[in-house]
Amino acid sequence: MDWLKTTDPDFERRFARIVDDRRESDEDVAHVVRDIIAKVRAEGDAALSRLTDRYDHHDLDKDGWRIDAEACKAAFDALAPDLRAALELAASRIRAYHEAQLPADRDYTDDAGVRLGARWTAVDAAGLYVPGGRAAYPSSLLMNAIPAKVAGVERLVVTTPTPRGQMNELVLAAAHLAGVDEVWRIGGAQAVAALAYGTDTIERVDVITGPGNAFVAEAKRQLFGVVGIDMVAGPSEILVISDKKSDPDWIAVDLLSQAEHDPTSQSILITDDAVFAAEVEDAVDVACAQLSTKTTARASWDDYGVIIVVEDLLEQGVALANRLAAEHVELAVDDPEAFFAKLRHAGSVFLGRHTPEAVGDYVAGPNHVLPTGRRARFSSGLSVLDFMKRTSFIALDKASIAAIGPAAVAMAEVEGLPAHAKSVQVRLK
Amino acid sequence: MDWLKTTDPDFERRFARIVDDRRESDEDVAHVVRDIIAKVRAEGDAALSRLTDRYDHHDLDKDGWRIDAEACKAAFDALAPDLRAALELAASRIRAYHEAQLPADRDYTDDAGVRLGARWTAVDAAGLYVPGGRAAYPSSLLMNAIPAKVAGVERLVVTTPTPRGQMNELVLAAAHLAGVDEVWRIGGAQAVAALAYGTDTIERVDVITGPGNAFVAEAKRQLFGVVGIDMVAGPSEILVISDKKSDPDWIAVDLLSQAEHDPTSQSILITDDAVFAAEVEDAVDVACAQLSTKTTARASWDDYGVIIVVEDLLEQGVALANRLAAEHVELAVDDPEAFFAKLRHAGSVFLGRHTPEAVGDYVAGPNHVLPTGRRARFSSGLSVLDFMKRTSFIALDKASIAAIGPAAVAMAEVEGLPAHAKSVQVRLK
Repeated sequence: MDWLKTTDPDFERRFARIVDDRRESDEDVAHVVRDIIAKVRAEGDAALSRLTDRYDHHDLDKDGWRIDAEACKAAFDALAPDLRAALELAASRIRAYHEAQLPADRDYTDDAGVRLGARWTAVDAAGLYVPGGRAAYPSSLLMNAIPAKVAGVERLVVTTPTPRGQMNELVLAAAHLAGVDEVWRIGGAQAVAALAYGTDTIERVDVITGPGNAFVAEAKRQLFGVVGIDMVAGPSEILVISDKKSDPDWIAVDLLSQAEHDPTSQSILITDDAVFAAEVEDAVDVACAQLSTKTTARASWDDYGVIIVVEDLLEQGVALANRLAAEHVELAVDDPEAFFAKLRHAGSVFLGRHTPEAVGDYVAGPNHVLPTGRRARFSSGLSVLDFMKRTSFIALDKASIAAIGPAAVAMAEVEGLPAHAKSVQVRLK
Repeated sequence: MDWLKTTDPDFERRFARIVDDRRESDEDVAHVVRDIIAKVRAEGDAALSRLTDRYDHHDLDKDGWRIDAEACKAAFDALAPDLRAALELAASRIRAYHEAQLPADRDYTDDAGVRLGARWTAVDAAGLYVPGGRAAYPSSLLMNAIPAKVAGVERLVVTTPTPRGQMNELVLAAAHLAGVDEVWRIGGAQAVAALAYGTDTIERVDVITGPGNAFVAEAKRQLFGVVGIDMVAGPSEILVISDKKSDPDWIAVDLLSQAEHDPTSQSILITDDAVFAAEVEDAVDVACAQLSTKTTARASWDDYGVIIVVEDLLEQGVALANRLAAEHVELAVDDPEAFFAKLRHAGSVFLGRHTPEAVGDYVAGPNHVLPTGRRARFSSGLSVLDFMKRTSFIALDKASIAAIGPAAVAMAEVEGLPAHAKSVQVRLK
């Protein structure tokens, strides 16, 4: 864990290092992924079968390619009542938030008599990657699948590895609840390649979203352009801005809630009180020791945790927060509005002392798929827009082409494109 | 040029080949680009200087790194009055269309007492790549720069190669008109790398847009995630759906207006009348011979032009159009609305016989940077959203966390994330 004070002589150097550290795997997976994609593209199902056998020890042809809708429904029906109610509450709140996000079409005629507009439509099919093993979260399935369905995607396909045949019943239950149309038992870069290019068995999709390991992320990056993808995601992070009036125990568990995700997760506290900071540090130690996830949380906090003591929480604290452009920002202060007004770069913001980041992971409604690794500088959380596209349109008549056409002719001529000019001129006669 | 009829026995096979043909360079540039990016990242300005000397035969240190604002203003002031008026009309119409595109923030409190919302903000800085030589179009500069400025981007940087020192005065004039803040005389993958990582001389940006050759496109693809980028663009295409009542000469120049861009551009006509199709084909030959761009237009039409004769223009024609997902679609029919209602996948649509695609390239207002290579299935034209990002926010109080918190605890527990559960539980007491 790093302790920084803005008054330290080497503060700027040390802070800049934190901002620039992307905490990402150095592992060169690009070559392996390129090879897997080429194999799936050339050999289709045969490659999927062979790669799934090799990496997941699952025989697709013998033990099954697909998990059917009945199995998903059975998993949902088997849920304990309180858990089922929790998932239903989460799904309905996520649905409501994303429904309010649906973009409006535009269609208007301007002063020159030109009709202009834009129309939004959903993609035909979307693929959702769901990791196997410990990172297979039902909440993650809901957060990816529901926006796609709200956008109007007709065919929503899940691919998920089932190592040694093992399925995650909670994920199947969530797939039922979210209305997923197909679930395929494949994973890794080969699943992403199959979704992008299609095989005899699996029809291609238009957009691929969802979290995955370094191979999955690299496959999405390589196939960007062949299909649409969501942002490439890195390790998770939380930034808590807190004054000394917060309960140190509350802030400690908030920091740990990010640290327990992964040893490369990052938790940062910015406060203007060194005594409070020390109290939080002690509270982290106490709370961490009680967690079943303590090994991961401890490693993350020790390696990547940061406490920054500033002189002025509002001005200086928020300026640092803008440079960090964190995925999650908690504002545990009396007047969170004043802080939020100055905050430009953040994936999602949690206002006030009663808003722990974890409510946003599950039930608040906004998406928990958010830009990491300082990408909140230029990108946004997952939304219905990731599953839609916009078609602009233009309609002219004799009068309106007479009004604006000559300018197009002038520009086409100077750009050396005579057929462009001619296509307007023939309509001006 | 390919002639297809839906009644041909091999129609489906031939049409599928057209849909799948991406018309993209096979050239393997990835390796070269990776090397250039690594050099710029490691050596900064020194690498830029060396690479610009090698590829553009321009000595940055001797002949200048930057084109200053005065030079851009001088280029604008030197424009012929009618051309200046045309550029001003284009700029004001592009500005108006993109201003209407600005997204609305949301901030509301739902039935559970949870305050939720989303706030849009501009990125701090955007970089715009402008090609040198023949593809350096002032219209393209306006189409990229104006949405960025409308979005609220404070620092808008242009990089453009100036081979052997040559500058394109029209591009400088457009830069002045659009309010570009910096113009740098560098090009290629090295310019993209400099924009993404920054050097001592050039500060990094958050988003990079703009057209370029295969090296520029590959650099953007490789740096996707380090910065935001617009869609990777391929050769341009137009699809004209026309009945026999259109003037064949008009349709011919519309097809040629795309063909004259590049030998790999694609122009497709779908009609339900074989006689009309033959008339258009003849008219293309006549019109093409008169163009100063005839070599390019002829090559494009010969190699990639397609005429498809269908039996039913509305149902069958639009179904084929949806599979082609073309960048530009002209609907040269009596009732374009009926066709547009069924058209799901297109970058931009031109309604009616008096709306040639070229007006959209220059003065109509919507963006001319549009998805190519069937990417309209999942992506949209450039817009203010490419220069903005959305921050979601959540605010709970004691009552609302009591309402939705227990569901978050249940989900966190089943996902094996005890600190998540605890961060909610401490606030429920």
